[in-house]
Parts: sequence; structure tokens; C-alpha cells
Amino acid sequence: MSLDRLIEGIKKTKNPTVAGLDPKLSYIPEYIKEEAYSKFGRTLEGASEALYQFNVGLIDALCDIVPAVKPQAAYYEMYGWQGVRALKRTIVYAKSKGMFVITDGKRNDIGTTMEAYASAHLGEVDVEGTNFEAFAADALTVNAYLGTDGVKPVLNVCKKYDKGMFILVKTSNPSSGELQDRILDDTKTIYRTMGDMCEKWGEELPGKYGYSGVGAVVGATYPEQLGELRKALPHTFFLVPGYGAQGGGAKDVLPAFDENGLGAVINSSRGIMCAWQKDPSLDPRNYAQAARNEAVRMRDEITA
Amino acid sequence: MSLDRLIEGIKKTKNPTVAGLDPKLSYIPEYIKEEAYSKFGRTLEGASEALYQFNVGLIDALCDIVPAVKPQAAYYEMYGWQGVRALKRTIVYAKSKGMFVITDGKRNDIGTTMEAYASAHLGEVDVEGTNFEAFAADALTVNAYLGTDGVKPVLNVCKKYDKGMFILVKTSNPSSGELQDRILDDTKTIYRTMGDMCEKWGEELPGKYGYSGVGAVVGATYPEQLGELRKALPHTFFLVPGYGAQGGGAKDVLPAFDENGLGAVINSSRGIMCAWQKDPSLDPRNYAQAARNEAVRMRDEITA
Repeated sequence: MSLDRLIEGIKKTKNPTVAGLDPKLSYIPEYIKEEAYSKFGRTLEGASEALYQFNVGLIDALCDIVPAVKPQAAYYEMYGWQGVRALKRTIVYAKSKGMFVITDGKRNDIGTTMEAYASAHLGEVDVEGTNFEAFAADALTVNAYLGTDGVKPVLNVCKKYDKGMFILVKTSNPSSGELQDRILDDTKTIYRTMGDMCEKWGEELPGKYGYSGVGAVVGATYPEQLGELRKALPHTFFLVPGYGAQGGGAKDVLPAFDENGLGAVINSSRGIMCAWQKDPSLDPRNYAQAARNEAVRMRDEITA
Repeated sequence: MSLDRLIEGIKKTKNPTVAGLDPKLSYIPEYIKEEAYSKFGRTLEGASEALYQFNVGLIDALCDIVPAVKPQAAYYEMYGWQGVRALKRTIVYAKSKGMFVITDGKRNDIGTTMEAYASAHLGEVDVEGTNFEAFAADALTVNAYLGTDGVKPVLNVCKKYDKGMFILVKTSNPSSGELQDRILDDTKTIYRTMGDMCEKWGEELPGKYGYSGVGAVVGATYPEQLGELRKALPHTFFLVPGYGAQGGGAKDVLPAFDENGLGAVINSSRGIMCAWQKDPSLDPRNYAQAARNEAVRMRDEITA
């Protein structure tokens, strides 16, 4: 009824990281693309098949040492419904390999519509008395600009299906401060106010390791705010993007963790997916091994 | 390079409304569902086919009197990639009938990822030198909690493909004020600050009717704020949800319009889709005619 399964995966692998699966065609070795195109053409379907096969290789190479994957919905939607099918297949495959799956969709809407998103991405949907899983990830990222109405339906689905969510608090991008750093008339920042709301919403989804099912997205690119929020939000687990390609380093993510080394999972997307492209002498067929090597390096750097 | 095509549709039909296509199975007449299930089973695919056929009937009945449709992405994602395929088919069909299509996805993310969403929902995507349309609506709703980085890529795609966007400013739901009504230390509300950002972003997408390609979502359920924002944001076109089922009436949406009766498009979803269910004596095969009657009633009420 929370993010406990993620925390257990982190404990088991001794690795508080998540591999972002944000595949662009340019990240994928030619041999995978050519095989997909030979079956489905140089089409949205062919591209989507390449995405999926690339992910399968990564998941196989990472599943015993990395506890979670985070597919970014945008990179699948880019290839149409065919890409969205590749997202579903990726989620199913990663779960079959024991990984915790966080769909990064940053979904948000009014209550009735948010019920539909929660059913789609975390729960089940009823068709004439039979329940189907539309996507059924383990957690979903959520944008809470609309307030409690847009979070409550996700809380309900998380309770029922033992799932979790991560709410955008302080994002990793350069312009995140334009709104999020603005000071309210009670002298708190907007991001801090959003963080406090996460603590409150999380009371409905308590977890056995002290962290609730309502996590927060806090970027590695703002280490000071990361430390401030870690202290202020003792029950809120952090999903930390921005490590690696976006500029955050191992020192920057340290403030995300509590005294037991828990409390956060650090995401790397391009660093892991594109590791094979950094060594021009590497046979592209070893892309997954290169991803595994980078994941080990990242784990060791962060847990050092 | 803006929302001009929407405005022209409104002028032509003399109807500043948009029909929300947020189909739930319970809104769809049995005969449509049974036909879909007989072909594809009581499955996600069967449900998605029913959604699409229901939409086709509505679009046929509305396309000469209502200028635009607004499919809500959540209700399609709920039925998996099969539902997302029904979304794509709906967009293609509505465009073929001359309607302006607003995908209500409330998408948001950091810059690189937002590029992917903009390509997916408004632009084109390249597969080895050939361009494909993934969804290619005419406009997309956007949540700008992440600031300019998350809007800029959408602006670029709108420029290139003559599309528009609507940014969440003051949403229609009961808890919208939790964050959006909070006062910043310069004494402005957050929603007003977001509105001011829309005006600024809109400078890059000027339109020939005085309204830019960056619109704003402002709920009919908060008429006072609607009037405040209409005065404050002279170049920002409003997409106004909350009329009908959510409680907003014709008087509530009046403040959304400028002195020429332009400046806003009012959405009705359940009111139009479920019109046939209000009259138990109606043959469900006439659901589309009932939707048309309700759309005419709404148009006349709003333009009175």
C-alpha cells in the first residue's frame, strides 16, 4: 500500500537507482533497428518494435542489479499507439523480471478524469464484468497543480492495488524555479508547499519503512533544495532525476538520502541507455553489457 | 501559427463551443457496444472499437454546427494502447470532417521530453527519413508547472505546423484553489501569474484576430476569476471547461468573452455525449441526434 516494494528492491540489490527507459531511435544500435524494420517496415510500428527490443536487452542486463525502471511515456507516445503498445509490452516484461516499474507520465486532471488515468496506469479497467490491465505499472508520476481532487483518485487506486505515486515537487529543469521557487505570502516556496501536501496526502498510504506511498520528484540539479526537502518531509520518498546527462553528480544526490541510506531512488536515463555509444571501439551488440557496466559504476559511485 | 483556425471555425458556425469526447462505456448505447464486441470480443479492443464508433456518430451529427472536439486522453488510455488507437482514429476522423481537434492531455515535462510530447500530439515524428503523424491534433492542453522549458518545445512545434496550445491557468475542479489561488509575495495569485506567463509566451505565436496560439484553461465554475483573467489577458484565448455537468451555467461563462463575443470556447462533454440518456423514451439509435439537439440548445443559450 505504498512504495514498500520499491524499497525492498533497493535493499535487496543494495542499489538506490532506477534506469530510465526513454528510448529515442538514435540511442538504439543499428542491428536492432534493421531487424525491426525488416519485419514491420520503416514505420511507426517498426520503430516501436525497435524500442521494445532495445528495452528487452536492457532489462535482461539490469534486472538482477537495478531494482526499478522508469519508462518515460512521451518517448512512446511519439511513435503513436504503436509506441504506446511498446510501452505496455515494456512494462509487462520488466515486471516479469521482478523489476519495479515507474511510468513517468506526469499525469494530472480533475477528479473524474484522474480516476481514468489511475485505472489506466496503475489499476484495472472493467469491460462488461471482466477486469483488464491497461498498463498497470507499479507507480506513476503525477503533477498536482490541480490540488487534492487530482491526487485522491490515485490514492484510492494505490490503496486497492498496492501501488505508489511520485508528485512533482522541485523538478530538475533549468526553468523549474520560475513558478516552483516563487515565495508565497506565508514565506514558503511553492515547491515546499507542494512537498508539505505530499506529506499530508501520504498519511493515507503509510509504509512499513517509514515512507508513504506518496513520493516526490526532486531534481539532482538543485542539491540545496534536495537537502531542505529531505529534512522537511520525513515520510516522503524521493525520485531524483537529473543525475548524469542533466548535470547532477554523486555529491549532488547525497542530500536526498536519510541517515540509513534510504529515502531516495536516483534516476539515470541517457547515461545507462547510451553507455555503448561512448566507446567507438565497442561492438554495438554489447550495448546491454555497456549499460550494465554503467549501472554498476553509478551504483558504486552513489553508495560509496 | 496560432488558434486562428479555431477562431475561424467559431465565426463560421457562430458557435463558441467545443464538444468534449470523453467516452465511458456507460455513455455508449448498447447496440454500438454489442456490435463492437461481436467483432472484437468483450476486451480492451472491443471496448475501444465501441468508443470509436460512438465518436463517429457524434462527429457526424455535430461537425456542421460545432467547430471543435476535445478528446480527453485519459478515457482512451484507460483502454490501453487499443484505446489510444481509438484516440488516433477519432482525431483523424474529426479532422476529415473539418473539425478543430484539441487533445486534452495536460502534458508536461522537461524540455527534451516535452519535445517528444509536442511531436507526438501536434507535430510529426521522423523514422529514418520519413515523417509520420503520431496523433497530430490541432491543439494540446499543457500544464506549465515546470516553467518555460516545458512550453518552449510546444511553441516551436506550433510555429512549424500551425498548431496551438492551452495552458492550465485556473482549473474548474473544487480543489483548484489549494495551489492556484495562493497569493505570491508580489500579491498576485498563482493562477494570475500563470496567466501572465501565457501572455508572454503567446508573443511568439501572434494571431490575426488578436489572440495568440497560447491559450489558457479557465474553469466556468469560477466566473469571477474568469472575468478578472479576460481583462488581464487580452491576447489569450480561453478554453472553458466546467459548463454543464460540473455546475457552470450560461451566465457563468459570459465573463470569458470579449466585447466582440470572441475570446473563448466553452466545453461540454457529458452534457452532449449523454443527452440521449436523459430521455428514457428515446430510441438509443438516435443518440447522435440527441447530442446535436443539446449542442444547438447550448449554442443558443450561450450566444443569447
